[in-house]
Order: sequence, then C-alpha cells, then structure tokens
Amino acid sequence: MNTDKKIEFFEPNPRLLMGPGPSGAHPSVLAAMAMPLIGHLDPDFLRLMDECKNMIREVFQTNNRFTLATPGTGTSGMEAAVMNMLEPGDRAIIGTCGYFGNRIVEMAERTGAEVIQVDAEWGSAIEPEAIRAAAKKTQPIKLIAIVHAETSTGVQQPIEQISEIAKELDALLLIDCVTSLGGIPVQADKWEADILYSGTQKCLSAPPGASPITLSEKAVGALSSRKTLPNTWYLDLQKLEAYWDNRRAYHHTSPISMLYALHRALAITLNEGLENRWKRHERNGRALQNGLEALGLVLHAEKSVRLSVLTTVRIPEGIDGELIKSELLSNFSTEIAGGLGVLKGKIWRIGLMGESSTPNNVLFFLSAFGILLRKYGFKADVAASLESAAQTLKV
Amino acid sequence: MNTDKKIEFFEPNPRLLMGPGPSGAHPSVLAAMAMPLIGHLDPDFLRLMDECKNMIREVFQTNNRFTLATPGTGTSGMEAAVMNMLEPGDRAIIGTCGYFGNRIVEMAERTGAEVIQVDAEWGSAIEPEAIRAAAKKTQPIKLIAIVHAETSTGVQQPIEQISEIAKELDALLLIDCVTSLGGIPVQADKWEADILYSGTQKCLSAPPGASPITLSEKAVGALSSRKTLPNTWYLDLQKLEAYWDNRRAYHHTSPISMLYALHRALAITLNEGLENRWKRHERNGRALQNGLEALGLVLHAEKSVRLSVLTTVRIPEGIDGELIKSELLSNFSTEIAGGLGVLKGKIWRIGLMGESSTPNNVLFFLSAFGILLRKYGFKADVAASLESAAQTLKV
Repeated sequence: MNTDKKIEFFEPNPRLLMGPGPSGAHPSVLAAMAMPLIGHLDPDFLRLMDECKNMIREVFQTNNRFTLATPGTGTSGMEAAVMNMLEPGDRAIIGTCGYFGNRIVEMAERTGAEVIQVDAEWGSAIEPEAIRAAAKKTQPIKLIAIVHAETSTGVQQPIEQISEIAKELDALLLIDCVTSLGGIPVQADKWEADILYSGTQKCLSAPPGASPITLSEKAVGALSSRKTLPNTWYLDLQKLEAYWDNRRAYHHTSPISMLYALHRALAITLNEGLENRWKRHERNGRALQNGLEALGLVLHAEKSVRLSVLTTVRIPEGIDGELIKSELLSNFSTEIAGGLGVLKGKIWRIGLMGESSTPNNVLFFLSAFGILLRKYGFKADVAASLESAAQTLKV
Repeated sequence: MNTDKKIEFFEPNPRLLMGPGPSGAHPSVLAAMAMPLIGHLDPDFLRLMDECKNMIREVFQTNNRFTLATPGTGTSGMEAAVMNMLEPGDRAIIGTCGYFGNRIVEMAERTGAEVIQVDAEWGSAIEPEAIRAAAKKTQPIKLIAIVHAETSTGVQQPIEQISEIAKELDALLLIDCVTSLGGIPVQADKWEADILYSGTQKCLSAPPGASPITLSEKAVGALSSRKTLPNTWYLDLQKLEAYWDNRRAYHHTSPISMLYALHRALAITLNEGLENRWKRHERNGRALQNGLEALGLVLHAEKSVRLSVLTTVRIPEGIDGELIKSELLSNFSTEIAGGLGVLKGKIWRIGLMGESSTPNNVLFFLSAFGILLRKYGFKADVAASLESAAQTLKV
C-alpha cells in the first residue's frame, strides 16, 4: 500500500428511504450482496438463474416461459421491452399521464415506429375509451403501452378495460410494473398482458441493478417475426433468452451479486406471501395517506386511482417544499422526493415500499413531517394525524 | 412468514476464480456491497459519484472531463461506446482477432454505419499496416476500434502505431479495455485515445455490473455533432453525462451498491499503486506461463503479444479439456474456462486478475493442474513447473 496518498473508503450515512426508490433493503438481501463471487457459468449460478426465473414468474403471476432479468436497472427493462417489440413500420399507442409514460414514448420514437400518444392529466389515469378512440383513427396497432404505477404522480392505472381493448385490436399489451411489482397485485396471466417488466429497488426491496421481465408466447412470436434486428445488442431479448435458457449461450457476464440479491429478495417476498405483502402495503399506505390528510394536506392523485405504495402530496401555499425535504434529511436522515416534470416544485413524493413499508415508519413520518410543517407556519394537526393513521393501522 | 412453503436462500459454494472473469473480489469490496442503500440523489451519493469519476480518470490515466460508469456490465460500456459514436453514413474500421472484436462489429452493424473489418488470426494481434491499407481504399474513416486485451485469445494489442494511424486519418480511436484496466498499463491520454471503456469484474476485482468509460473532447464533439439520436436511450451517453455531471438530470436509478463496490475497488487499486499493480500482474502471469510451459504445455497466444493477466493454453492431444476443467471445479473448487468461437474445444483460458493474481494461486494452480493432467495420461513435469514458476516469482 502506498500509504502517503491513501484514498479513503466511502461510508454512507444510514438513511430511512421513503422516497420513490430505492426503498430500504432487507438486511438479508444486503448480506446476500456480500457473498463471494462465483462464475456466471458455475453450476450453482445456473441453478440460481433457474430459481430466479421461477420466482419472477410467481411474483408476476404468470406461467410465461420467457422470463428473466435484464442486466441493468428498471429502465433497462423498459428499453429491452420497447426496443425489442417495435421496429420501423410498427404503430404503437402509449398512454402518458406522467414522467415514465413519456419515457416510453422517447424510447419508442428511437425505434422508428409510429407513436400515438394518449394523454391524461398528471394525477389521473388513462381513460380506456381514449385509447379505443385513438385506435379507431389508424390501424393496425401493434402495441399498447401503459404504466401500472406512475411513480411521478402516485396513480395506479386500472388494467382490465385496456386489456379488453388490446384484445379487440389484436395488439400486444405492455405494462410497466417498476413500482407495482411485489407491492400491489400484478396479474400478468389474468390480465392477458404480453410484456411486463419491473425494477428491484421498489417493492421488492433489493438494490437497483436488475429488471425482471416476462413475455407471453404472443410477444415471443412478435420477437421472432421482426423484419429488422433490434436497435440494442446489450438488451436484445432473443440473445438474453439464449443466455438464460438451457442453451446458456454467452452474451454478457451476469451481474452476479445483483442476482444473489434478486434471488434473496424474491424468496423473502414469496415467503411473506404475495397476498400478505399486498395487504401490508395497502394498510400502511392508506394509514399514511389518512394521516397526511388529517395533517391538513391535500393529496395530489385522484382518489379513485390513488396508489398505496407511493403518495403524492401537494406542497401548501407558503411552504418551501425543498426546505422541508432537506430538513427531513438533515434532522431525521429521512429521504423523500419532490416532483418531476410539470409537478416539479408542486408536490412531495413519499414512498412506503418493500421493507420501508412499516407501521413504525408511518407514525414516525407523520410526527416528523407535522413538526417541520408547524415550524414553517403550516398549522398541521399532528395529534389528529396520528390518531387517524392509528385507526387505519388498526392498532 | 408463510412457513409451510418457505423458499430456501441461495448460498454459493466458495470458488477460486481463475477464469476470464469474474475474478475474486477483495473482501472489503464485498463488504461495501452490503452497506445500507441510500438514495441516488443523496448528497453522500453525489460525492461518491464525483470521487468515482476522479478515480476512473486516474486508472485510465486521463484528464478527460467526460468520465463515468454506465449502469450495466462491460458489454454495456461497449454498447454505449459503439451506439453513441456511430450512425448511418459513418464508416468504421474494426480490428477483429477474437470474440470481442467480433462483438463490436455486431453492435456497429446495428447502428447503420458501414463497417470495415480488419482481421488477424485468433492468437495474434492486428497488424497496424492492415488498418492503414484498409483505410486507403475508402475514406473518410470516422472511427477505428480495437480490443486492448482480447479475453478470448489471451492477446495484448499494441496500441501506439494504431494511434498514429488514427491521427493520420483524423479518426476517433476506440479501445476496449475490459480485461486490461487495472492489470496492465492503460494510458488513455498518452495514447491519444478517444473512447475507452472497461468492466469491473476483471483486474479491478469488483463484481460485474458497471462499466467505467471515458471520452476525449474530440469524442464529445462527435457526440454533439450527430445527425440522429443514438439507437439506445438507456445508454445514451449525453443523457448519462447530464446525470453524472452537475446537472444531476434524472435518467436512471444508479445501481447504488454496485457503485459502492466500484468506489471501493478503485480506491484499493489506487492505494496499491498502478505501477505496483501492473508489476504484480506481470510477475504472477509470467510465472504461471513459465510454469505451464515447464509442465510441457503449449501456450496459444503469440509470445510477443502475450497478455499477462489471461493465459490461453492449447489442450494437448488425447486430453479431454472439459474433463480437466470440471475436475478442477469438483476437486479444487477452482474455475477456469474453455475457448470461445473458433477456439472452442482447443484451449483453456486461465486468468490471474485482480485479487486472484497471487503467487499462492500460481503455485497451487500448477500443482493441481499438473496432477490432473498426469491422472489422464499427460506426462506433466510438476517439479520442473513449480521450479520454473518460483524462479519467475523470485521466491
């Protein structure tokens, strides 16, 4: 060691993660990250990949053969889905009522496909009838894309009617489940959805760095009848499949430690039980939301489509949103986020995902948030807020 | 917990990693992977990103402003480099004398650019004059791409003359440093190279999952004068730069734990000292190679361009290469690899990279390999092999 210019190791300050992701990871998932490396073609590792596939199927509630995790964050899953399903000459309808729908549009435009955008307000869901109307003007439609849980607005998109429309149009249905998987019901087969992907750092509570993805046989058929190669080589789904199935065809060196973490997080999720896990997220999320309203705050997302795992709150007049956010960090080492895009400066985003979704965090957060709001002149009713949350929590 | 169908956690068997990667990770790097998550916009995390940038510059020996790590394995760095630098109407010369040169060609072809392939035998380096000759036939040439350390053949590509040619042609010089960075001298600025990327799981001895990349001002200029958007959104270098520089423009959720590991591995690398680290890899690699020759084996890569960190050995007549490989795994929990592409079934690939590059591993490996070769009828001279290695190690 060259001791006269020794570089210091990095040590993060521990944080309570209540933003839009990453959520706090389970200690056992962190321990899995530290397990010694093995080769990506080691028999042990091949078994791990197979077990991950089975567990990914289970959390997506699907029997899809084509199921794997792309070697990158949730955005890599989005890119894999979009770039592999679309090519020049295709036409896609993309629902946009938030930042992540817009991102799908940006990606789709790079494929050379024709993109039809169906908008809704940032805080509402996409109207199924608006999709049907858009499709009436120009057909055929190859793909309909929708975001299940819009992390930028806190809206949960109802899927059933859109699934009906996709069937009518014989279009593929792509659903972004980055923020929903493991936190609220995702039912790939029941929905007859064709392409679904997620992230690891939201309701699955693993570090970011892999993206579970699953394709129906119809989507696999669309892949193999492409006329051109996909834009991407790194995220070419046919190549990824040949690496993940029994061919074991070398494509990339798997992010070994990340797959240790994914395996552990999926096992923890399924051992808790999907139903239990959905109920836990629902209960804690609603308790937080009721508590926030009792503080005197206004929630941003429309009530009928309000997501439980990620809550958007309007910043009251006269309150500096950034200041509250930074005081939460400096006084309580707690992270929440502000708004993106058109909601920048207008809302806070508060997550209760995966390991971060506990009754403890609900009560702590309402206390700390209430105290800070009062400090800056907003007359938050902390006692009423805690009472309301406790009632929802049934404690 | 739903205890009646509890899924078992995965526990890998500990391995000695002497294949082409991943190499064994430093225990401190594994410990870094287990640190609690923080948000990717946390002030602590922004500092970590800045420190990573500085250390990546140092290991690449460059002052390039544009320096970051792409959110994926080494192949993501390759895709980012190729897809961002090339577009329809461009012309590129790509040197191919192994699997990874061919992969660059496959990616380049997806950009719509014209690709001119300059080949050499798998086991030799690219002749600079062959590049000059190819360029004479058709100009201008926008980019020359070359693999510094070809992991499939064990060849180290000399760079200086190719750099001269790139200057003559006013072409960008792209160098794949996946297997070289941190193990053998990589000197971006001295070489006047324009785009260099690497992996984390080779001589830097971190887990796979990030790809350090650096661009000269000339390459940055080429980025901003593109006529079309890059094929890729996830690996769009201008978007990645806006996330990594002071704009902090949200693009993806950084693979937090992987960057903890990258920071730790870079600090360990620089604390050891690049010169010391290069010498260590050289000494151990040559000791292994001399020991293998003394066993009676033939090395595959041409001697004048033989890489120290990854050694290719011809499988002797009458020996089942797969059997020796699997006995190394079952008896000694030690991983090496076979050949790729045209070298499949013809060679073994033995790595001594990062933490795996120790005198202990050299002596252990020659003993174990010698014993197994003798078991299957190859008259390996184990005593002479160890003697020869010890001489090179100067013990």
